[in-house]
Amino acid sequence: MSAIDDSLDIIKRGCDELLIEAELVEKLKRGKPLRIKAGFDPTAPDLHLGHTVLINKLRQFQELGHEVMFLIGDFTGMIGDPTGKNVTRKPLSRDDVIENAKTYEQQIYKILDPEKTLVMFNSSWMGEMSAADLVQLAAKHTVARMLERDDFHKRYNSGQPIAIHEFLYPLIQGYDSVAMKADVELGGTDQKFNLLVGRELQKHYGQEPQVVLTMPILEGLDGVQKMSKSLGNYIGIAEPPSEMFGKLMSVSDTLMWRYIELLSFEPLSTVRQWKKEIDEGRNPRDIKVMFAQEIIARFHDRAAADKALADFDARFRQGAIPDDIADIALDGGDAGLSITQLLKQAGLVASTSEAMRQIDGGGVRLDGEKVSDKGLVVAKGCTVVAQVGKRKFARVQVS
Amino acid sequence: MSAIDDSLDIIKRGCDELLIEAELVEKLKRGKPLRIKAGFDPTAPDLHLGHTVLINKLRQFQELGHEVMFLIGDFTGMIGDPTGKNVTRKPLSRDDVIENAKTYEQQIYKILDPEKTLVMFNSSWMGEMSAADLVQLAAKHTVARMLERDDFHKRYNSGQPIAIHEFLYPLIQGYDSVAMKADVELGGTDQKFNLLVGRELQKHYGQEPQVVLTMPILEGLDGVQKMSKSLGNYIGIAEPPSEMFGKLMSVSDTLMWRYIELLSFEPLSTVRQWKKEIDEGRNPRDIKVMFAQEIIARFHDRAAADKALADFDARFRQGAIPDDIADIALDGGDAGLSITQLLKQAGLVASTSEAMRQIDGGGVRLDGEKVSDKGLVVAKGCTVVAQVGKRKFARVQVS
Repeated sequence: MSAIDDSLDIIKRGCDELLIEAELVEKLKRGKPLRIKAGFDPTAPDLHLGHTVLINKLRQFQELGHEVMFLIGDFTGMIGDPTGKNVTRKPLSRDDVIENAKTYEQQIYKILDPEKTLVMFNSSWMGEMSAADLVQLAAKHTVARMLERDDFHKRYNSGQPIAIHEFLYPLIQGYDSVAMKADVELGGTDQKFNLLVGRELQKHYGQEPQVVLTMPILEGLDGVQKMSKSLGNYIGIAEPPSEMFGKLMSVSDTLMWRYIELLSFEPLSTVRQWKKEIDEGRNPRDIKVMFAQEIIARFHDRAAADKALADFDARFRQGAIPDDIADIALDGGDAGLSITQLLKQAGLVASTSEAMRQIDGGGVRLDGEKVSDKGLVVAKGCTVVAQVGKRKFARVQVS
Repeated sequence: MSAIDDSLDIIKRGCDELLIEAELVEKLKRGKPLRIKAGFDPTAPDLHLGHTVLINKLRQFQELGHEVMFLIGDFTGMIGDPTGKNVTRKPLSRDDVIENAKTYEQQIYKILDPEKTLVMFNSSWMGEMSAADLVQLAAKHTVARMLERDDFHKRYNSGQPIAIHEFLYPLIQGYDSVAMKADVELGGTDQKFNLLVGRELQKHYGQEPQVVLTMPILEGLDGVQKMSKSLGNYIGIAEPPSEMFGKLMSVSDTLMWRYIELLSFEPLSTVRQWKKEIDEGRNPRDIKVMFAQEIIARFHDRAAADKALADFDARFRQGAIPDDIADIALDGGDAGLSITQLLKQAGLVASTSEAMRQIDGGGVRLDGEKVSDKGLVVAKGCTVVAQVGKRKFARVQVS
């Protein structure tokens, strides 16, 4: 396998689309560092692991010897919301932009090498641009092609207004690639259209078109919806080590591989070895532990990773559920079964009053979670592991 | 009738649409001179009467005491054709623009009062505008509304490309009204959409919206198609007096009234009087002569107008067709009748060879026009007055 093939393997790891691979190979063959562009919102960032998918890819390019240009799109941010409809989207001042850039740097340098990262601002060139220049730029794309962009298309067809300046933003973003002489631009899959505009504008301005690499949107802890703060299914990069550890250990065995593909820097050969071991019967939990430690070490440090594991182990041992516990089926009726009745009928307490005392004393758990509500009802159809004190367990099916 | 009613009558003379009349009345009531805007192409002009319809309306506003702003849209002209498709549409230099403005002034001051005319250039404010300002401007209109413009709509639906900068031009034209604080904007009927954009932008910028007055496109000498150089149905304002006179005398009695409405400065009361006289049997030719003299006096002088009439009279008497000439019907077959056969069968010549000699000698006319082509064919269905020498006439219907 050649060095270029190795590079390609790393570059393509987890990526959604690479346009056009042959062009990338050509660029790699020249043996010079490539200029890798990725654009970011100028508003104050508070990154979670979903955001780091793109930044991780930038890091991989850095490790392959290329130059990363971290572009903050402050030109449009400094305009604010020109429709005036969104009063909360006020124009950013120069100071805001610099402040936000610092917040970015504090976070991204957990992943990127500051020595090999250029932080750029598109206001540097767009702020100098005249209206006449922008008219010239706007001449380089057609209305019909812009309306092919998925979201514009949907809005136009459903009668939702599209303000004309929204057609200018993809052109400005594309022009950034011209100004930056980008060889490669990374973006989320939802950015594909805009990244391709960059290719075309570079051709218009006599440059070799950039290669476009899109990365998937990371699923949240639920494994279904995209990771997002508002959905609550995220892991923030500033979260305490123990939180990170617990959340990462909670992901499903399937999602684990997805996270490892997009978030781990373990070499592909290692990942392949792990998969083999799992096939041969190794507990996936072992891999999750290693992966969680890698992530904690990245955003905190190695010691924090070790401590999080030790704490987790201790908690796990304390709350561990024995393998050999009684399976009991109870009739809950349509209304379900109250916690006190459940404990009594399962034989874990002698009476409902003992059940209440145990709840008050903090000795009752359902599925490892402490119960404090004496009125709790377990619905018909549920199966729970009920626990009283340290040693009494039963797996109860309410039917 | 109040003074405002009088003004309204003059303003509305010949106009296509006035939006909104009540707003215009409000503006007139204030008794202050209004700022009247009309925009013109920055390329070198060579005006014909069709172009003067708008300029005449500006003059009427001047006579009513208002301030005329003659806007040369040089900002876009100085950009040239940004698509690069039209190589002949090169960007205009500052010198070109000044040169073209002089050419305009030489021509428009035949109609407008230079003392009451401000010649303006939109590069004055657009040249200062930044890309960020233009983005803000573009936010003030939607894609859907722009696609409602008739020509955009047709092009979009038929798959003809619309470059995005074309969406910016109506906004720039509208912004001109903001920069100029226009009270009224005049334009051709085809400009209605753009003039209305001006109204909206003025509202966005906190100004009272301009009143929009559209003027019809003048028909050419044929009375059917619009007057245009390429169609050859025009009267250039620099044409010699005799040419103007002959062309104006050639228009139909119906078209005459249209021209008088849009091109004459005779008061409406006079025009009404003329119509009454025609109804009572006066020869329309008398009115045409007066109108033609008015136009010649405008673009040349009174003496030239008088001389053109005298020359026309002399030519007319020389080539006059007697009232009592023979009406002859001839069978031309599907192919029509050759001029030589026509002259012979009508009894104007003894033989086809005499017909040819007469044509060579310049003695043959059809409808007063000298015939030089011996192969000329008069089509089936035509009626012509044929003349040989000074005295032989026949009105021939080829059927």
